[in-house]
Amino acid sequence: MFKRTVALLEKSKYKPFANMLRDPSVKYSRFRGVDLPDRTWPNKVITKAPLWLSTDLRDGNQSLPDPMSVEQKKEYFHKLIEIGFKEIEVAFPSASQTDFDFTRYAVENAPDDVSIQALVQSREHLIRRTVDSLKGAKRAVVHTYLATSDLFRDVVFGMSQKEAIEKAVQTAKFVRSLTKDDPALKDTVWSYQFSPECFSDTPTEFALEICEAVKAAWEPTEENPIIFNLPATVEVSGPHVYADQVEYFSRNISEREKVIISLHCHNDRGCGVAATELGMLAGADRVEGCLFGNGERTGNVDLVTVALNMYTDGISPDLDFSDMESVIDVVEKGNKIPIHCRAPYGGSLVVSAFSGSHQDAIKKGFVKQAEREAKGDRRWLIPYLPLDPKDIGRNYEAVIRVNSQSGKGGAAWVVERALGLDLPREMQVDFSKVVQEAADKLGRELKSDEIISLLQSNYNIDNCSSGALKLQDYSIQKQSEFVTTIEVHVTYNGKEVTVEGTGNGPISSFVNAVSKVVGREIELQKYAEHAVGSGSNTKAATYVYLTSGDDSQWGIGIHESITRASLNSILASVNGLIAGKPHTLHLKRATA
Amino acid sequence: MFKRTVALLEKSKYKPFANMLRDPSVKYSRFRGVDLPDRTWPNKVITKAPLWLSTDLRDGNQSLPDPMSVEQKKEYFHKLIEIGFKEIEVAFPSASQTDFDFTRYAVENAPDDVSIQALVQSREHLIRRTVDSLKGAKRAVVHTYLATSDLFRDVVFGMSQKEAIEKAVQTAKFVRSLTKDDPALKDTVWSYQFSPECFSDTPTEFALEICEAVKAAWEPTEENPIIFNLPATVEVSGPHVYADQVEYFSRNISEREKVIISLHCHNDRGCGVAATELGMLAGADRVEGCLFGNGERTGNVDLVTVALNMYTDGISPDLDFSDMESVIDVVEKGNKIPIHCRAPYGGSLVVSAFSGSHQDAIKKGFVKQAEREAKGDRRWLIPYLPLDPKDIGRNYEAVIRVNSQSGKGGAAWVVERALGLDLPREMQVDFSKVVQEAADKLGRELKSDEIISLLQSNYNIDNCSSGALKLQDYSIQKQSEFVTTIEVHVTYNGKEVTVEGTGNGPISSFVNAVSKVVGREIELQKYAEHAVGSGSNTKAATYVYLTSGDDSQWGIGIHESITRASLNSILASVNGLIAGKPHTLHLKRATA
Repeated sequence: MFKRTVALLEKSKYKPFANMLRDPSVKYSRFRGVDLPDRTWPNKVITKAPLWLSTDLRDGNQSLPDPMSVEQKKEYFHKLIEIGFKEIEVAFPSASQTDFDFTRYAVENAPDDVSIQALVQSREHLIRRTVDSLKGAKRAVVHTYLATSDLFRDVVFGMSQKEAIEKAVQTAKFVRSLTKDDPALKDTVWSYQFSPECFSDTPTEFALEICEAVKAAWEPTEENPIIFNLPATVEVSGPHVYADQVEYFSRNISEREKVIISLHCHNDRGCGVAATELGMLAGADRVEGCLFGNGERTGNVDLVTVALNMYTDGISPDLDFSDMESVIDVVEKGNKIPIHCRAPYGGSLVVSAFSGSHQDAIKKGFVKQAEREAKGDRRWLIPYLPLDPKDIGRNYEAVIRVNSQSGKGGAAWVVERALGLDLPREMQVDFSKVVQEAADKLGRELKSDEIISLLQSNYNIDNCSSGALKLQDYSIQKQSEFVTTIEVHVTYNGKEVTVEGTGNGPISSFVNAVSKVVGREIELQKYAEHAVGSGSNTKAATYVYLTSGDDSQWGIGIHESITRASLNSILASVNGLIAGKPHTLHLKRATA
Repeated sequence: MFKRTVALLEKSKYKPFANMLRDPSVKYSRFRGVDLPDRTWPNKVITKAPLWLSTDLRDGNQSLPDPMSVEQKKEYFHKLIEIGFKEIEVAFPSASQTDFDFTRYAVENAPDDVSIQALVQSREHLIRRTVDSLKGAKRAVVHTYLATSDLFRDVVFGMSQKEAIEKAVQTAKFVRSLTKDDPALKDTVWSYQFSPECFSDTPTEFALEICEAVKAAWEPTEENPIIFNLPATVEVSGPHVYADQVEYFSRNISEREKVIISLHCHNDRGCGVAATELGMLAGADRVEGCLFGNGERTGNVDLVTVALNMYTDGISPDLDFSDMESVIDVVEKGNKIPIHCRAPYGGSLVVSAFSGSHQDAIKKGFVKQAEREAKGDRRWLIPYLPLDPKDIGRNYEAVIRVNSQSGKGGAAWVVERALGLDLPREMQVDFSKVVQEAADKLGRELKSDEIISLLQSNYNIDNCSSGALKLQDYSIQKQSEFVTTIEVHVTYNGKEVTVEGTGNGPISSFVNAVSKVVGREIELQKYAEHAVGSGSNTKAATYVYLTSGDDSQWGIGIHESITRASLNSILASVNGLIAGKPHTLHLKRATA
């Protein structure tokens, strides 16, 4: 009946109400974590990098619609080593010959300080095969898991808590007999990792109980601790609830110094990074995950984000993402899943700003940053940019991008970066209208070269000889402190003319001369100049704003000689006044 | 010197060490939040939906490389209303004619219970224009903001704390005079929203101080509270630090009942969802964000995730995402940015499982789920699937997907879904090898129809007439309780043969007869059957496993008559034995 009402509502204009009627509490309920009112993690801070394990090649790979080829896996493996991973879970070697062979490759090609980890079910013949795949490694971790949550125990395995403990102990002993207790294999440092699955959904007391039993069976040492990996196989609660569970485990496990607590968070509720970070505060020593959060469903926690969050907190993560582009390249090739443009740190848009106010703030920030750096202060304090793009191998050109939502700062930034021109503020306003009109009409972002084209066509930069008025020659004479005369030889609409102009300097006298040539009263309203470039390449850039009746026009001139630059900017402006405002370019519209 | 060492290391084989040398603590430092050792939020739970504000059309749109067209914005606006949003920030109306016009459209087309919000800088002429754009609305929110963080105040605005307070008060009073104090505009419910920017990076005491001043200037009521929006404009710390800030603000702001505390989280550290959820625990009433986390850089918080997290906690979010596909369609069209395949809830892969153990668990879970539902228990308890895909308009076909990493369960699931065939366990193992080999060879996921093709070709389903051995006719006679004879008329390699077979039933007697025809000793090792379909469409499906010397072969038969189905499965199997194992299909390889 209720169901039918919902169905009817869904087909009617009252569709939104169907949702309110459809009562989620019938199907779902909040997960209740462990009771820990005296939790300490909210007052803690992270002070050093955890041990990192990449499971890109195992958990990540098994979740791909199109898994990696052997060649892709090899390339990925070497990239992980280059980034600085010392622990890598490479495969599920007992599951297929491909996985077995790749584990052999990893064992044979890993540096001495890199530990190779392999996952296996708690079944003897599969464990034998897994240990075989790891033989000869300098450091190897056998990783077993067992369902401990009520849901998994009941639904999937039909195993009681007691049976689960027996199974876990038996497995630990069996692995032990095949590895660290086998004198023939003593050249390998054998470690053991056990994952109570899914920890996040397991009564925490039971997770502790089974891990105590496994620890007693394995007998770890301080030098070679046992790894208890606490997976949020499925993220079932807020990150603070998971942190409570981790803190409870960390506080209550015996012989804490012989235990490495490892986190393995998934991202079903979009909180994988938060759960990992709060879990680290709660006492964890080690973090498992994948680059850019690959993995089943919503993925594993994104190790790039966790590591670079530490970095921007002023702590070295001991992982190197300074060549982000090459990391992205390997990951995208292997996974065949693109990094989202808004993925923290790695996304193509995350060091970009489109909105005008953001752009203005960033521009101002860069100016202050340069001032601070000149004083030896290297702190990075730029509004809207928590990370220096250069720290991940990006340049500043991509920071500010221009569309119809951008203000004057955006286009001005592009012009400054591309041409070294620092447009006067009023000119920025004028130019931003041109840019906004073009972007609005096209319905898309403007590329840098399009913005430069708009600038050049609109202000006739250095293109003064193509207008109606061309300067052939000139000579300037300073008559007195206050009077300068100029004799100019120009062509105007193809006709040669020589005239004289007077003013209080070369610029005003040239404007005076040009007014006579074109037969219009032209007034100089604004003038600005600055140097471009440095050393022997230094040029002068000049900006003039001329009016003639109701018409007005900015012009830009660039030249080795500052005087000639000034005259060029006036020619550019006058030619604009004569021709009327140029149309915006014919650019390609957005396709969507 | 240090810099040069890093540069040298980076070019050498010791590149990973460059990162450790490059000391991030020189450039970055951890943000220190407010001191709140008696925080209460970690013990709280969320019990009801917050007020939701979508800023897709403002914050989201301004961050797009290619902003929305007017038509796309309209479609998006109506979709937001359909989802159930009662507050929508539509534009920055003073920034452009396009934004002004769209605000007018929103005002004129909003249902009476939907509030239209517009953002404006604290400048009088812009505020005038903004209020103009909102005139005639049933409910309107004027949203102003001011830099309050040290970084923004100093670097961007050069304003002292005192000046900022003055400016904020003056702005609130000015907006007030133009809106709720203007008797001519009394048909609109005017609300005021103030954002201290960026709150997450502002000394919390100062954020409180400026908001107190703004509140005194606006004079809100319990019926029409003032909205204090606390933006993590840039996410600068862990979500627990932000939650402390929110709780401090919520506990200390006066006249709490006249205040709506709103969250506006960005995602620079990948914790936008977590910060929002912990902020709600800390006392916030309202959440701003975008669908699928669009917005500058890493985006705003993803409202889809926050809402559906509540849903799977058993609480109605009062937002309807039951038709997820249509929401995705509108969002992707407007934003021209694809939803990532691993985005919580909305991503195409998030209700999928590839790994064998996951698939087995899900399959078992569905069986138990059906048993529970038959008893009227509607709780959703499926391993690895925290949300019923049907709640977001997805079907179960997409849940289990098959590649070389999948076990027997995956392909069996596809077969069961597509053909209604419940393969015997040993046959699943046999078939999974065929599937794994094909997927491994192709290096990609297999589509359902490819898996079905592999099944049909490998087990010769119902295709018994195409083999060497074809059944023309048969007659069965039960001789005694224990002896049955069958007379079969077959063609074998085109030659007609009639033979008699004997056994303890029709199946064994048919195997006996067929053995004589093909001249090989054939033994029946396994047999299973079940019904397919229901009512008048019910058929029988039978499975046999035959061996002949070292050869073995499964066969499947489907027929209205169970006897004929059995004979068909034997024919399928024998034809397989004669022909040898078929090759896997020629499928298209992965391109990457």
